[in-house]
Amino acid sequence: MSFLRNAWYVGGFSDELLQGPIARTVLNEPIVIINDGAGGLSALTDMCPHRFAPLSMGQIDGGTVKCPYHGLVFNAAGRCIHNPHGKGARPDALSLRTYPVRQHDGLIWLWMGEPALADEVTPPLYPFLSDPAQAVQHGYLKVDANYELVTDNLLDLSHAEFLHAFIMPEGTASSIIYRAEQVANRVSAYHTMPDQPNTPLFELVLGVGVQRVDGFANSHWEAPANLMLETGVTVLDEGDGRVALLPQTHLLTPETETSTHYFWSVARDGSLDLPQLDAMLHAGLSNAFEHEDEPMIKAVQQRMAGRDFFDMGPALLPMDEGSVRARRILAKAIAAEALVPRTT
Amino acid sequence: MSFLRNAWYVGGFSDELLQGPIARTVLNEPIVIINDGAGGLSALTDMCPHRFAPLSMGQIDGGTVKCPYHGLVFNAAGRCIHNPHGKGARPDALSLRTYPVRQHDGLIWLWMGEPALADEVTPPLYPFLSDPAQAVQHGYLKVDANYELVTDNLLDLSHAEFLHAFIMPEGTASSIIYRAEQVANRVSAYHTMPDQPNTPLFELVLGVGVQRVDGFANSHWEAPANLMLETGVTVLDEGDGRVALLPQTHLLTPETETSTHYFWSVARDGSLDLPQLDAMLHAGLSNAFEHEDEPMIKAVQQRMAGRDFFDMGPALLPMDEGSVRARRILAKAIAAEALVPRTT
Amino acid sequence: MSFLRNAWYVGGFSDELLQGPIARTVLNEPIVIINDGAGGLSALTDMCPHRFAPLSMGQIDGGTVKCPYHGLVFNAAGRCIHNPHGKGARPDALSLRTYPVRQHDGLIWLWMGEPALADEVTPPLYPFLSDPAQAVQHGYLKVDANYELVTDNLLDLSHAEFLHAFIMPEGTASSIIYRAEQVANRVSAYHTMPDQPNTPLFELVLGVGVQRVDGFANSHWEAPANLMLETGVTVLDEGDGRVALLPQTHLLTPETETSTHYFWSVARDGSLDLPQLDAMLHAGLSNAFEHEDEPMIKAVQQRMAGRDFFDMGPALLPMDEGSVRARRILAKAIAAEALVPRTT
Repeated sequence: MSFLRNAWYVGGFSDELLQGPIARTVLNEPIVIINDGAGGLSALTDMCPHRFAPLSMGQIDGGTVKCPYHGLVFNAAGRCIHNPHGKGARPDALSLRTYPVRQHDGLIWLWMGEPALADEVTPPLYPFLSDPAQAVQHGYLKVDANYELVTDNLLDLSHAEFLHAFIMPEGTASSIIYRAEQVANRVSAYHTMPDQPNTPLFELVLGVGVQRVDGFANSHWEAPANLMLETGVTVLDEGDGRVALLPQTHLLTPETETSTHYFWSVARDGSLDLPQLDAMLHAGLSNAFEHEDEPMIKAVQQRMAGRDFFDMGPALLPMDEGSVRARRILAKAIAAEALVPRTT
Repeated sequence: MSFLRNAWYVGGFSDELLQGPIARTVLNEPIVIINDGAGGLSALTDMCPHRFAPLSMGQIDGGTVKCPYHGLVFNAAGRCIHNPHGKGARPDALSLRTYPVRQHDGLIWLWMGEPALADEVTPPLYPFLSDPAQAVQHGYLKVDANYELVTDNLLDLSHAEFLHAFIMPEGTASSIIYRAEQVANRVSAYHTMPDQPNTPLFELVLGVGVQRVDGFANSHWEAPANLMLETGVTVLDEGDGRVALLPQTHLLTPETETSTHYFWSVARDGSLDLPQLDAMLHAGLSNAFEHEDEPMIKAVQQRMAGRDFFDMGPALLPMDEGSVRARRILAKAIAAEALVPRTT
Repeated sequence: MSFLRNAWYVGGFSDELLQGPIARTVLNEPIVIINDGAGGLSALTDMCPHRFAPLSMGQIDGGTVKCPYHGLVFNAAGRCIHNPHGKGARPDALSLRTYPVRQHDGLIWLWMGEPALADEVTPPLYPFLSDPAQAVQHGYLKVDANYELVTDNLLDLSHAEFLHAFIMPEGTASSIIYRAEQVANRVSAYHTMPDQPNTPLFELVLGVGVQRVDGFANSHWEAPANLMLETGVTVLDEGDGRVALLPQTHLLTPETETSTHYFWSVARDGSLDLPQLDAMLHAGLSNAFEHEDEPMIKAVQQRMAGRDFFDMGPALLPMDEGSVRARRILAKAIAAEALVPRTT
């Protein structure tokens, strides 16, 4: 197995930078994301080219990084701008690898492949995350499993009844109408749940009076592992017809082959000034992802014990169509990339 | 190194099932042992064939197992009997591997090889463990070492003086008369200790008045790693002639190459209604196995650092005859098995 | 990567033996160093040849070692002198590998290669460590990194400004005059710091009145990883001219490929009867090595992630000349050794 390199991966939430530089391993590569001192961002290898010390252990400010071991200073473009030793020579080799970086909608994106190709591809856009008409919650968790197992989880939401009572009441799974769709290299999995009791999650949004709803949850995946999840209900009670939406992003970045950075966000367009609702939504979702999904996905990783998913001969069901399509698209893209010599 | 597959291994004590299903890894394979709902037992792979979730994390009752991830329900024969999704299809692939299982004498036995061969072999019988005329204590420990190192320990009891003051007083080793015997593929190691002071262990059984005894401890091994240990003393004082016996089983089941499930039992046919004696015997023996044998065997495993026992050129002594015979019988059986294609 | 075997490595400080035998792994080999009962020392493999138990877990006194598992007793020459079993046979195979050992200057040295070659090489001599005119402090730490990374650290002291404020004040690095010198297979790295403010370290030795000094720190390396470090200052104030010296040894012994035993000593020839100064020097240096150097070297080891130093293409600077020479001398010696068949 390996990773798709010519792709955008989330390196962090923008607001993490309020706490200082972000040091994070992505596709096994240590990276530090810093403010570049000119209003932008820079993503640098988190390893000094001289003696391989982690730069994130050093002083970082004003768009410069000072190596904690021998004091070499680098600018946000990765060039050594100060060598405090001897005659202060700064040979070209004294440069840091930089990673193309983009920032929008509160997300920082890293390009892990050929830098020259970064401009040919736009990171996924999720404008609702930065829409002032939306209240947005977000969170991060580390999953001790391969990222494709998390994708599997998100492209088949039929597990919700069994893992998430808060999201899907008992007995709902049988009524899910599942449909997968592939358009070019994107995969969508549509889950429709007609005429259901309202769920605890949507009671938070709609209040407790609502009885019956049409529910839906549609996952939209694009490689390598970025998912948009449209969840919502239409209120059926006496022709009410209101629609409540909780659009979400689930953005997965491999740390290693067996661990994943999981960045999630959820938005809503009503009841904006309700901090209690913010807190309840954040607690409800982060509990679901951290304490219900994560332990299960980690347990699956352990059971697989390093074996390949398809080699293990899974007994696939109709609701696996979306995730199987995604796995195949990704495998094909990785295989194609492997034919091109790497320069980084 | 590998394991003998066509063999019976202890999967657990029967009374463990009072606490619920037994989830245990045997020869690197995760297994869950359940009541089959019809008075018998079933041993199933502890991994859903759909998405590889551990079934032991799910609901298990009435001879059925419900996968905690997507709610598929399996019966005790491993067949999927309910798929709560879509049209509820249950393709043949939606089946669990089952392991032949036997239960007698308070022990649950698992057959790890070709199911069709299980009926040709009977698990070891230890009827004294279920004899109402015997008081039986038993215990479990995990040993962080290869199971053959534990077999070595049990086929040469000359270590008792050095590890177990409770069992064999100082100076006893030199007087042990050791004899190994191989009959077909079984190995016995006879330890005779004529005219000795009584030991603290047998003072528990006989009381403190006894002075001199003839001691004996005879280990009977059969592949892969099941041992019966007859330990006892004959009282010599003034022609007393009483014989006290503490027959034991030491049944070893590899968890992995470097860890072992160790199930021990000890019986006695006198002083049955003495709960204090029960407690003292249990504490004395479990202390010996857990705090004296286990740390030593684990230390040996660490010193071997992954190397093969014979490749390391051990300086063998006469009292190693039994364990060397057992190692050779086992190696030959494993090699023979490797010539036959596996279907599981 | 591998180790130079025909070489002397420090196995411990002599005074460690006051606490009992020294059990230590050197070049992946477990060794126990004991008093030989005749005023000398013996270094033995810490593994019984019978069943591979660690001898250091047994009774050791009077120059004999009793195996904790089966009670075999060995003398300081590694010969089995007592077998408490059966007829007490002591076949030749019942012998322990011994390692040539030397002791002087408070250090115990082990020869890890062909025993016959040990007499051809003398361990490094550091007579100042046992000179009654010197007050000597010493300490031990374990470094979670390959020993060559520690050598690198010690042959280029320009890191001191960035890691060790106690040793080198801010702004000093730029004024270091660095010169490396190779004589045969020894490498010296000379660091000269003319006309500097005195440092906190040398204030301990000279008192707080001194203003300006010429500083120097000269590292002398010999393979595999033994360093003598001459550090000192010459007082410049009004032609004072006093010289204060803190000669040090930094002796590195690989435990494994990724962990190192680090034995350090520091001497001084003035203010001998000042226990407070002893304590301050010991605390100051052990803090620098354990809490400033070690975390950085360990972080570099982690960043290297098992890769070879030169394969990673370090951007080398003039002050790396000494450590690069040392690495090359060592690599050549290890390669030469690999051409000769081993008998141990």
